[in-house]
Amino acid sequence: MQKQRIAIIGAGPSGLAALRAFESAERAGAEVPEIVCYEKQDDWGGQWNYSWRTGIDQYGEPVHSSMYRNLWSNAPKEALEFAEYTFDEHFGRPVSSYPPREVLWDYIDGRLRSSKAKDKVKFATAARWVQHHEDTDTFTVTVEDLKTRTTSSSEFDRVIVATGHFAYPNVPTFEGIETFPGSIEHAHDFRGAEKFADQRVLMIGSSYSAEDIGVQAYKMGARSVTLSYRTKAIGHDWPQGMEELPLVERFEGNKVHFVNGQVREFDAVVMCTGYIHNYPFLPSDLAIDSPNNVYPSGLYRGVVWQENPNLYYLGAQDQWFTFNMFDAQAWYVRDLILDRAELPSAGDRAAHIQTWVKRFHDLSTEAEEVRFQADYIRDLIDNSDYPMFDLDAVVEIFLAWVRDKKENVLTYRDKQHRSVMTGTMSARHHTPWIRELDDSLQRYLSQ
Amino acid sequence: MQKQRIAIIGAGPSGLAALRAFESAERAGAEVPEIVCYEKQDDWGGQWNYSWRTGIDQYGEPVHSSMYRNLWSNAPKEALEFAEYTFDEHFGRPVSSYPPREVLWDYIDGRLRSSKAKDKVKFATAARWVQHHEDTDTFTVTVEDLKTRTTSSSEFDRVIVATGHFAYPNVPTFEGIETFPGSIEHAHDFRGAEKFADQRVLMIGSSYSAEDIGVQAYKMGARSVTLSYRTKAIGHDWPQGMEELPLVERFEGNKVHFVNGQVREFDAVVMCTGYIHNYPFLPSDLAIDSPNNVYPSGLYRGVVWQENPNLYYLGAQDQWFTFNMFDAQAWYVRDLILDRAELPSAGDRAAHIQTWVKRFHDLSTEAEEVRFQADYIRDLIDNSDYPMFDLDAVVEIFLAWVRDKKENVLTYRDKQHRSVMTGTMSARHHTPWIRELDDSLQRYLSQ
Ligand SMILES: Cc1cc2nc3c(=O)[nH]c(=O)nc-3n(C[C@H](O)[C@H](O)[C@H](O)COP(=O)(O)OP(=O)(O)OC[C@H]3O[C@@H](n4cnc5c(N)ncnc54)[C@H](O)[C@@H]3O)c2cc1C
Ligand SMILES: Cc1cc2nc3c(=O)[nH]c(=O)nc-3n(C[C@H](O)[C@H](O)[C@H](O)COP(=O)(O)OP(=O)(O)OC[C@H]3O[C@@H](n4cnc5c(N)ncnc54)[C@H](O)[C@@H]3O)c2cc1C
Ligand SMILES: NC(=O)c1ccc[n+]([C@@H]2O[C@H](COP(=O)([O-])OP(=O)(O)OC[C@H]3O[C@@H](n4cnc5c(N)ncnc54)[C@H](OP(=O)(O)O)[C@@H]3O)[C@@H](O)[C@H]2O)c1
Ligand SMILES: NC(=O)c1ccc[n+]([C@@H]2O[C@H](COP(=O)([O-])OP(=O)(O)OC[C@H]3O[C@@H](n4cnc5c(N)ncnc54)[C@H](OP(=O)(O)O)[C@@H]3O)[C@@H](O)[C@H]2O)c1
Repeated sequence: MQKQRIAIIGAGPSGLAALRAFESAERAGAEVPEIVCYEKQDDWGGQWNYSWRTGIDQYGEPVHSSMYRNLWSNAPKEALEFAEYTFDEHFGRPVSSYPPREVLWDYIDGRLRSSKAKDKVKFATAARWVQHHEDTDTFTVTVEDLKTRTTSSSEFDRVIVATGHFAYPNVPTFEGIETFPGSIEHAHDFRGAEKFADQRVLMIGSSYSAEDIGVQAYKMGARSVTLSYRTKAIGHDWPQGMEELPLVERFEGNKVHFVNGQVREFDAVVMCTGYIHNYPFLPSDLAIDSPNNVYPSGLYRGVVWQENPNLYYLGAQDQWFTFNMFDAQAWYVRDLILDRAELPSAGDRAAHIQTWVKRFHDLSTEAEEVRFQADYIRDLIDNSDYPMFDLDAVVEIFLAWVRDKKENVLTYRDKQHRSVMTGTMSARHHTPWIRELDDSLQRYLSQ
Repeated sequence: MQKQRIAIIGAGPSGLAALRAFESAERAGAEVPEIVCYEKQDDWGGQWNYSWRTGIDQYGEPVHSSMYRNLWSNAPKEALEFAEYTFDEHFGRPVSSYPPREVLWDYIDGRLRSSKAKDKVKFATAARWVQHHEDTDTFTVTVEDLKTRTTSSSEFDRVIVATGHFAYPNVPTFEGIETFPGSIEHAHDFRGAEKFADQRVLMIGSSYSAEDIGVQAYKMGARSVTLSYRTKAIGHDWPQGMEELPLVERFEGNKVHFVNGQVREFDAVVMCTGYIHNYPFLPSDLAIDSPNNVYPSGLYRGVVWQENPNLYYLGAQDQWFTFNMFDAQAWYVRDLILDRAELPSAGDRAAHIQTWVKRFHDLSTEAEEVRFQADYIRDLIDNSDYPMFDLDAVVEIFLAWVRDKKENVLTYRDKQHRSVMTGTMSARHHTPWIRELDDSLQRYLSQ
């Protein structure tokens, strides 16, 4: 029999988890399918692969990463740690709980650096179109080699979509915005807050991006930082110079009217209004169409496309858990592909989905949502040989983090947490976050 | 026999020229094929359909238009006038030679506003993938309805690509740019120079965008405007506060080192470095791969894809002539499709291409390039019933424009020119361009 052929689209943390999952089975002596991973960027790491570029990249592709200079992990690294490649193993000594982007890229990269995984990745290659054939139950994946501008098509038995969902900005419009004279950018295109020094800056949104870019602007000396919420204020005890107002009603020149009647003048606006699921390379019957939430519909166990179970998604959920959740998903998908785990019938899958959708709809607090995602991961790990870890302890880390942030959004990144994988207590970074202006790996590791 | 089916991709000035060409044949009693035009924006007009958005639009698509607030035609309207729908016919009275964007959009729209052309256009619909079938010599065009997020495929006998080639920015990189603390944007994402008031702004590039965005920044009160050229300085007698320097060598913080050793500090950079041909919906054997020039290779008569003569391009050239050139192309392509014009054999087409490529390579001055493009258009009109117009007179208009700009880049838009279509002398705009801050149609038509 011919070897199965598997396409992985995307080599961010999720796509790399898939590569690692197969590699780990192969190391243990299993016969694994032929794997081709397509990655449109020149290197792997997904969001963690920083680029100063915005909008469209050097190949004419939408720039993928939304990260920026001076971005540090916004949750403790102890919550995202791989269960089978720890921070201790990577760095050889304790490091702090909130590393900057480059350090986390190094950790992701480190797990696969010395493996043969890189040979399976076709870099600077964008998926253009995926077609499923009813008769053969196979997929044709058409890609473009962006360096030679050559398109080509290959046949696969299964396709794993791991292209992320924080790359295509959701950008609402507001009356009068077309003549706002200042700068307008979405968080996706934000690359650093130095330019906001002495400016009056408006963030629209009330989630992670609004919070962190707001604080970045504060850190870099903005004259004022205003956050505008649609549903609910973040509600921190903001430092002097930062405030929260309800939703923008309209723009009028450089003035912004808020729905509560207040008016402010601004020099710059950052739309921190989240992202959309977008899969321009997929026919609509294979593409997720969902808001950003912890249980997007159409996916059995959050990974198997119900309408076509040879198509998988990794990392499609909103994310409390990240790297270790992607691992749990990847290991389970690998085991389905290797026939180690059994795929239930369509009816049983639908019933399973229904049970979880009901639980999902009943969630009302953040704490419930974290526990829901922990349970979801537990269910995945129970069905593969990914090392089980103390998910309840990680839930407690998340809840401590939420409290730390509430206490002081400027200092929560100075806190320390203990690894549930190794028991190691994190180090203290040499410099308080609010005063640290160098986010390089070199500076981070200097003592 | 079944009616032929024609897909037009894009409803900018070129796609609209194609719609108009078929409509005009139909009005004259001809039997015309079934036409479907796919346009990813919500309205037609292409570049002239302004959006405040940058990067990625509300549907997750790359924003198409590179135009900005206070963009006025940069060449006399007498050089772009349609030969069969004049400015006199549209406005009913003389208007000035350099209208702002909204006014030209109105002119383009006006020609088709009251026709049935709009019924043939599927708006908010992006071409996703085009496949040619050798056996049937037909094309499958797969599109996505961006509002419903539904993909679908249809069969066509011919495909006209009219998606423009000033929409995907060419963005070079420079040493140290990733830590430049100011704002960096490509001209494609520039939307207005008000935000540059009192800033030190660097334009990289020495063509139309660098010139006009530089002057916009000057007009809006930039502290200084520096233009950096790679090949050749524009060489105008710049007003105080504007200067030209050779190419950027590297960035160092907010300092920029130029290859001649000079160093300047900047608050903002605009990359005016042009655009790339990019057709992410086409297999590489159907896609133009060319720098921006007046004779991109692979196209017979600049419109017929030599390797597959049922595929056509409109507006693929660098543009001295615009709207009337697109018309000349569209009429000729229409006549090929209607079998009114005969398509030469592949060998004869290759020979024709060779002759023009040779002429093209021998061009050395701007004046020669304009004449080359005039001759090119003449050759097209000679092969269709598009009204011939005095191309030599238009060449003179272009040459006068080049002189006017050289004389004073701040006042050339106040000059008047005479229509070669109607003989009408343009009006004088009520306000000198450098003092005009309102670019609306309403203000333009006010007396
Ligand atoms: C601003 C920001 C900050 C974040 N900060 C944190 C944090 O502090 N901690 C944390 O745990 N998580 C953070 N995240 C969450 C982040 O999404 C995950 O950490 C992780 O990167 C998701 O991995 P992924 O592989 O699923 O997707 P991505 O990382 O998005 O990777 C997807 C990959 O697919 C590729 N791709 C896309 N389209 C194509 C195509 N057509 N063809 C080929 N390749 C394609 C992309 O180039 C990319 O490499 C952050 C996210 C954002 C947006
Ligand atoms: C900044 C700027 C200023 C300019 N100023 C002038 C000027 O002053 N005078 C002048 O004569 N010319 C000017 N031009 C030149 C301009 O290119 C032409 O005037 C004209 O707009 C070209 O028409 P087009 O139809 O070929 O392309 P475009 O106007 O670019 O239209 C292409 C259309 O295709 C659509 N499209 C693209 N991809 C897809 C897809 N996958 N599926 C469906 N639809 C798609 C786009 O949405 C767009 O509507 C300017 C260009 C730029 C960039
Ligand atoms: N490491 C870091 O420091 C860092 C920094 C930034 C982001 N991130 C990560 O990036 C990911 C995305 O976070 P995100 O904050 O960009 O997106 P998000 O969590 O999806 O939040 C989107 C926000 O936009 C608001 N919004 C959406 N549409 C709106 C509209 N029309 N008008 C007004 N507000 C609107 C939402 O408000 P409603 O509540 O009303 O829906 C919500 O506040 C997360 O994984 C996050 O952890 C990390
Ligand atoms: N109506 C208006 O006011 C207006 C305004 C702007 C633009 N436009 C139109 O927009 C279209 C595009 O014009 P454009 O100026 O954007 O593009 P363009 O005419 O193609 O010019 C590209 C410029 O970028 C430079 N460049 C390219 N790569 C570079 C690199 N690596 N380093 C430095 N410089 C580099 C080129 O320099 P070299 O000479 O060295 O190659 C050239 O100066 C034209 O049709 C124009 O008429 C109109």
